[in-house]
Amino acid sequence: MDHPNARGKGDSVLSNLTLMQNLSAYDRLFRSPSACRIFSEDAHIEAMLSVEAALVRAEARLGIIPVDAARVIESCCVVGLYDKDSLAIKTPGAGNMAIPLVKQLTLAVRERNPQAAKYVHWGATSQDVIDTAFVLQLRQHFDHVSVLIDRISNDLASLAEKHRRTLVAGRTWLQHAVPITFGLKAAGWLDSFLRYRVRLSELRPRILVLQFGGAAGTLAALGANGTGVASALAEELDLSLPSVPWHANRDRIAEIAVFHGVLMGTIGKIARDLSLEMQPEIGELAEPIIEERGGSSTMPQKRNPVTLAALISSALRVPGLVSTVLSSMVQEHERGLGGWQAEWETVPAICALTLAALERFGEFLPQLEVMPDAMSKNLGVTNGQIVAEAVSMALAAHEGRDKAHVLVAKASRHASQQNIPLLQSLFQSKEITAHLGAAELETLLDPSNYLGSSSEFIDAVLSDWRSALAESKHGG
Amino acid sequence: MDHPNARGKGDSVLSNLTLMQNLSAYDRLFRSPSACRIFSEDAHIEAMLSVEAALVRAEARLGIIPVDAARVIESCCVVGLYDKDSLAIKTPGAGNMAIPLVKQLTLAVRERNPQAAKYVHWGATSQDVIDTAFVLQLRQHFDHVSVLIDRISNDLASLAEKHRRTLVAGRTWLQHAVPITFGLKAAGWLDSFLRYRVRLSELRPRILVLQFGGAAGTLAALGANGTGVASALAEELDLSLPSVPWHANRDRIAEIAVFHGVLMGTIGKIARDLSLEMQPEIGELAEPIIEERGGSSTMPQKRNPVTLAALISSALRVPGLVSTVLSSMVQEHERGLGGWQAEWETVPAICALTLAALERFGEFLPQLEVMPDAMSKNLGVTNGQIVAEAVSMALAAHEGRDKAHVLVAKASRHASQQNIPLLQSLFQSKEITAHLGAAELETLLDPSNYLGSSSEFIDAVLSDWRSALAESKHGG
Amino acid sequence: MDHPNARGKGDSVLSNLTLMQNLSAYDRLFRSPSACRIFSEDAHIEAMLSVEAALVRAEARLGIIPVDAARVIESCCVVGLYDKDSLAIKTPGAGNMAIPLVKQLTLAVRERNPQAAKYVHWGATSQDVIDTAFVLQLRQHFDHVSVLIDRISNDLASLAEKHRRTLVAGRTWLQHAVPITFGLKAAGWLDSFLRYRVRLSELRPRILVLQFGGAAGTLAALGANGTGVASALAEELDLSLPSVPWHANRDRIAEIAVFHGVLMGTIGKIARDLSLEMQPEIGELAEPIIEERGGSSTMPQKRNPVTLAALISSALRVPGLVSTVLSSMVQEHERGLGGWQAEWETVPAICALTLAALERFGEFLPQLEVMPDAMSKNLGVTNGQIVAEAVSMALAAHEGRDKAHVLVAKASRHASQQNIPLLQSLFQSKEITAHLGAAELETLLDPSNYLGSSSEFIDAVLSDWRSALAESKHGG
Amino acid sequence: MDHPNARGKGDSVLSNLTLMQNLSAYDRLFRSPSACRIFSEDAHIEAMLSVEAALVRAEARLGIIPVDAARVIESCCVVGLYDKDSLAIKTPGAGNMAIPLVKQLTLAVRERNPQAAKYVHWGATSQDVIDTAFVLQLRQHFDHVSVLIDRISNDLASLAEKHRRTLVAGRTWLQHAVPITFGLKAAGWLDSFLRYRVRLSELRPRILVLQFGGAAGTLAALGANGTGVASALAEELDLSLPSVPWHANRDRIAEIAVFHGVLMGTIGKIARDLSLEMQPEIGELAEPIIEERGGSSTMPQKRNPVTLAALISSALRVPGLVSTVLSSMVQEHERGLGGWQAEWETVPAICALTLAALERFGEFLPQLEVMPDAMSKNLGVTNGQIVAEAVSMALAAHEGRDKAHVLVAKASRHASQQNIPLLQSLFQSKEITAHLGAAELETLLDPSNYLGSSSEFIDAVLSDWRSALAESKHGG
Repeated sequence: MDHPNARGKGDSVLSNLTLMQNLSAYDRLFRSPSACRIFSEDAHIEAMLSVEAALVRAEARLGIIPVDAARVIESCCVVGLYDKDSLAIKTPGAGNMAIPLVKQLTLAVRERNPQAAKYVHWGATSQDVIDTAFVLQLRQHFDHVSVLIDRISNDLASLAEKHRRTLVAGRTWLQHAVPITFGLKAAGWLDSFLRYRVRLSELRPRILVLQFGGAAGTLAALGANGTGVASALAEELDLSLPSVPWHANRDRIAEIAVFHGVLMGTIGKIARDLSLEMQPEIGELAEPIIEERGGSSTMPQKRNPVTLAALISSALRVPGLVSTVLSSMVQEHERGLGGWQAEWETVPAICALTLAALERFGEFLPQLEVMPDAMSKNLGVTNGQIVAEAVSMALAAHEGRDKAHVLVAKASRHASQQNIPLLQSLFQSKEITAHLGAAELETLLDPSNYLGSSSEFIDAVLSDWRSALAESKHGG
Repeated sequence: MDHPNARGKGDSVLSNLTLMQNLSAYDRLFRSPSACRIFSEDAHIEAMLSVEAALVRAEARLGIIPVDAARVIESCCVVGLYDKDSLAIKTPGAGNMAIPLVKQLTLAVRERNPQAAKYVHWGATSQDVIDTAFVLQLRQHFDHVSVLIDRISNDLASLAEKHRRTLVAGRTWLQHAVPITFGLKAAGWLDSFLRYRVRLSELRPRILVLQFGGAAGTLAALGANGTGVASALAEELDLSLPSVPWHANRDRIAEIAVFHGVLMGTIGKIARDLSLEMQPEIGELAEPIIEERGGSSTMPQKRNPVTLAALISSALRVPGLVSTVLSSMVQEHERGLGGWQAEWETVPAICALTLAALERFGEFLPQLEVMPDAMSKNLGVTNGQIVAEAVSMALAAHEGRDKAHVLVAKASRHASQQNIPLLQSLFQSKEITAHLGAAELETLLDPSNYLGSSSEFIDAVLSDWRSALAESKHGG
Repeated sequence: MDHPNARGKGDSVLSNLTLMQNLSAYDRLFRSPSACRIFSEDAHIEAMLSVEAALVRAEARLGIIPVDAARVIESCCVVGLYDKDSLAIKTPGAGNMAIPLVKQLTLAVRERNPQAAKYVHWGATSQDVIDTAFVLQLRQHFDHVSVLIDRISNDLASLAEKHRRTLVAGRTWLQHAVPITFGLKAAGWLDSFLRYRVRLSELRPRILVLQFGGAAGTLAALGANGTGVASALAEELDLSLPSVPWHANRDRIAEIAVFHGVLMGTIGKIARDLSLEMQPEIGELAEPIIEERGGSSTMPQKRNPVTLAALISSALRVPGLVSTVLSSMVQEHERGLGGWQAEWETVPAICALTLAALERFGEFLPQLEVMPDAMSKNLGVTNGQIVAEAVSMALAAHEGRDKAHVLVAKASRHASQQNIPLLQSLFQSKEITAHLGAAELETLLDPSNYLGSSSEFIDAVLSDWRSALAESKHGG
Repeated sequence: MDHPNARGKGDSVLSNLTLMQNLSAYDRLFRSPSACRIFSEDAHIEAMLSVEAALVRAEARLGIIPVDAARVIESCCVVGLYDKDSLAIKTPGAGNMAIPLVKQLTLAVRERNPQAAKYVHWGATSQDVIDTAFVLQLRQHFDHVSVLIDRISNDLASLAEKHRRTLVAGRTWLQHAVPITFGLKAAGWLDSFLRYRVRLSELRPRILVLQFGGAAGTLAALGANGTGVASALAEELDLSLPSVPWHANRDRIAEIAVFHGVLMGTIGKIARDLSLEMQPEIGELAEPIIEERGGSSTMPQKRNPVTLAALISSALRVPGLVSTVLSSMVQEHERGLGGWQAEWETVPAICALTLAALERFGEFLPQLEVMPDAMSKNLGVTNGQIVAEAVSMALAAHEGRDKAHVLVAKASRHASQQNIPLLQSLFQSKEITAHLGAAELETLLDPSNYLGSSSEFIDAVLSDWRSALAESKHGG
């Protein structure tokens, strides 16, 4: 489990990082400055150096290496000192980034203090550094994700509350079903987000864990000190100590991927819904008109939902990346040939796409314009058929569900074929009017009378949200 | 959370099911009788009928429909009554299986009691029945998965304990790294399995939840009784009651898929390891010779590891299926067009492949033959180089880690090129023999002296396993 | 290349197959009777028996085995003779279906003629039989696919011709762009289908190829007769003879998967378009009202586009299956452990889903109702903005593209904010009216004047289609 | 088909590009300088500018815009002029890179010649520029791929020829099967590569095609000149002219993805085979010892197969990316919301990973050390059982295939259980020695006598390769 002060201490490990590379157009479109910062090459190098520094601190603390050596080494664990180009050039031959980094670190330390250079990377292997560095990056990432989930939950809660009585067509199979409220839609989305909150809280302690096993998971290079160093290193980095190194058993890594995969699916679902309601013939939602946003290079009238396109695009991309991570779990023996390497760009890509999607969705939501009038107008598009079920259920009290369904279906078909209102068609059926009078039918055909438990459902979700909120305040 | 008595009561819902279809060759190779039973068409129909029966019981209890009608309807909720061929033929036009089933059910009820037929499926929609039926099937499935995870954990624990001192080459990048023990390998696998135990316990309460929202999630057809019926229905089925219907927000479904996806990856990883150790040049593991098992149609000597092939095959298949489920989450509005339907065969396929993999792996493990002699012999294949790190770390105490690494690497290269034992090559280096004498080098080159914290790690995992076991006994 | 008479002769191999199993509801919804027939277990067994029969015929022809023995063996190669249940039960232990089948075949032959039993499966291995049997199944499949591609092409050509002047909103980013015609949409789809025709013709000769290599690709069991038997066997089966057995190099298999993967994507794209135009607020397309088709279990008015849902569902499922096939290509040595086995259900699943999608789409297309009036009405939904580009380009002749774009964009924004027609807003801009008079603006704002090269594009595609058609008649 | 001079002319479009960004460590590990150059942001911008320049040249040629304006615009189509940072910042709001680029281009032109600025991007839309630019990048890419496929084919042909008699264990299911030759393995790989040659030649003319349709595929902004400009533009860019714009029908794009997906699978398969033969217990292949290559940060003896790891890693990653591209084909109407955008990074990623894999594999192959002695030694590991089939087939001539198989299987099992040579076990079976004498058995058990058609297969593939080579020289 995390220490109570884990976040504070942990953050300081990477807190001063600034993004040294320029962001590409696609970095800005599909990712974001903070996602790029957390998962940049610089950040990974810095995190690896943090692990190297913590390792020597831990070892010095236990008297395994000299305190002075540790101090010199730590002073060289500064990302600015490194020649990234040379590091990149050496990576294909080395097979990973840690090997050339440790070499450069050793050289840098030797220049300052040849004695200290003897103790660089003492007892560790590349994977220890790479895996644990990634865990440190994930800690920063999870902090962002957590804040964004809460922020989006709050905005969805506002929508649910504000629009609890805003009628809108419920749509199934891309056809009108029965009336619902826009607040109920929002409550359904919020309900998912509240589950991501819980999932993240379950996931974090399994992920924010030291990975330290040496060459093949025995820590043999540290002799009898293996578990002692592991414990001290975990403490230095404010990470949990696992029972056994997990270098070759990658369920923790896969769990990161799938958490984001599911979350990205939910974002994609909401974005699809919003984009469909923004179609010009439907026009129930809009983004505010912002100069230059969503324009076309040729069509002057265009207001393309560019944010939603980016979100849906990421929802299309993440599933394939997740499948790669799952396939890659089948890693050979104590360190795989290909499977481990396949994680290196894929898992950060999943995290970065999802984090950016959360950010952009979080910015988008408060700007969303809801048009209750258009929603109301669209309810009438089927000329009353959207409440056919209401009539059917009322008639069912008299004729039974089965026969009522047949009678109203027939009237609906008739209405469609004649292009007349359902009400008029119902009036033409004696089997229906025998039980339901004109006034009753008109009442039944008012969508606002057919909302069922919508409000209760909204209340239940908002109540869950308030509990979650309260829990956040009192700890977490 | 589950009721204390949930399992007992829930099980009875589906308990008498026998498998009515014949199993195909691939059903038996990649799935299993129990997986096919749980996820057969028959089982799905039976589960849907269980939902219909529970619905009318709940509604009769609340006085919404007559108790007598409910009794008649319930008596018709028996899978044997239905014409599956006709049901299948009607499905493409209906778009799902629930619609023709409800029609057949209504007809069957009407034949017995025309009055009762009026109340069939009262207030529900197809998706309520389909989704909740699948949840009931999952409850059975999870019970199996849970037992199998425990069984496999126990067998892995035995392996870890029994082979805690059985030396084997640690292998990284498919090359020898440093010595480890076979018990440590098993402990690493067990550690993963203990996490699946926890994940399943987190997952179950989120999945074993009623799905009941009516046409578009408002339960409007039930008027003011919507949440009351929902609550009673959940009770009837021993499922949890969600705050809001989740028909369109499929993170629960995706979570089922990804749980299995990750688990299947772990099984694939272990199967890959085992299969590599069974290569004839390595020969560290074997399956017992069983008549007809793993033979060839032409090669008389063959003993193919057919079980491992099936496990690895499933580990190759599940990731793509998981990506489908994630892609399918992007479902339109209150019921998607294509996304929901894409789940129907895919999620059960994932569950069935994984359940069968657990079963076959669970049968395989106790039969595994471990050959410590071969493991020991293979340790010598590199002529001592597998403990080069031991020498390097001993030398590092004198020369520093960096220089020691260079010196021993040079000696290793020399040994490889001359095809001589590492010991002999080390003797030829004055820089090495200056610090390390012959006796010391020989001690260093004994793999059994270089196991580091292996035993401690095994102890830690076995201790976790014992705690999990104790927990299982005292509740769960 | 195929023999001229390949199809006739090849067909007879499997021609009398009737489907012995019942189809499940999902077989009928996502697959089809013909897809299930071609890829059923029965069909696979029958195809394997065809290979065994052809093998002994070829060997008898070359004098390698006695002609009488071959005749007896061939007479036992009849699917009805086999105990499928026993075959299924033996499959997990054998690891594939061919081994128990060859055993049953040998027993059946021995009962009739013990001498003949000596020659069953002479010189072959399981994979030869399994792979080549699948190729025979694919030949049938490709014949269906080819006919369906042509049928759909013809229907798309009719749509393109008939609706070459039917105005409809061009939609980009789910917003209105500029007017197009429904015929142009259809021509674009047709253009893709014409490419699948070509791709299939390129693919067929690479796929309809014998796979015959014996135990590990050397045909050593046949001594000096290996290539002779291979050649005679290919002739017997009307398959091409490859230069080398391809048992371990699976690019042919992967190519099958990806061909279908891309084709399914095109079907999904068209289905998505159609489903969007069927939304009630848009209403430009409809399926005819057919009793019981697309109904709901609760909503009487429902006409769900169930065919399109099935198509989109398959388009969501196939990509994940394709990724499995690609992952599975990484098969070890001369026969993989897991990768080969992962193909067995996955590739037929891809073929069956796609074949059924072609069938259902082929049935759907001629029933499609096109509503030109609704299309025309929707063109007006943006109050003229859909032809903003026309105004912009006319103005560009005077002011340049850049400035014109800015001016019309401003007028469009103004029109949106004030909710007035674009024409009115344009009138309010002196910079615009300085160049474009009222009459000119009205002409520009008539969508039927802004169709550009639509008709020429349609002509070009229809001309390609006619050439393809002619080519089909004169050979193919 | 390409013009004869297409390559020369086409190349000049992008020929002077130098890579302006630094390569990251993973760029160098998983991609390569040339892959990064072709698919860099700079290259994409340059290609887009090439399209803009060709567009105005074409339009000036047809008298649609002034020649002087075209010249000025063309002079501004130089990647160095642009502020990439500003372009990146504007991209999320614009939704694509072309819009801010056209804006910057217009500004740059205006500074030089305000009149010319009027004609920038005349008649085009963003997608025209983005899609066609990508096609130009692909032309460069395909040239590299083509050369690399030929280079690798040549090296595989050398291996096949050189090792046509080098005995090695044929391995199926990761167990010994029958002897083969290493040349036959190489011939099988070569056979696949020869098919990629053909596939690429089929693919190129379908891909190297202009994409130009204006706002929604009608080219309406160009009035009656649409197809004329399209034709001239295709000529300027040396691309084929399609019958209809393909902006919304993405089978061409998907075809690119799947071609690479299958090719990457073949590379992965070969890399897996090589890596398995490099295992220390097997030791049949090796990479030469190169200083710093494949070392470990802690184990001095390590020589990790880093190139193979990178290849297998890419073979694990590409399938998921391909599934994304297939899923993304389902794009809405005339330009999708999410699907099109999902292609932008994914398709180049697939191309870059595959191109780099081809490069690295091409460098690796000539360095591969083949150890015939080790191969020969491993043949003996099963103590003769690897040629059990030879004995079985010889016995079959007397006893029939079925009985012979049973007898030799029994002897093999006995040999395994007693850990004795197969020969000795065979001697103990009277049913075997009744037909096969000691001398004959010894001959049968010599692996070099059991190679079947290996040499003929190698010849056939080498003959195909020579034909392909000749074809390359005489045109292509």
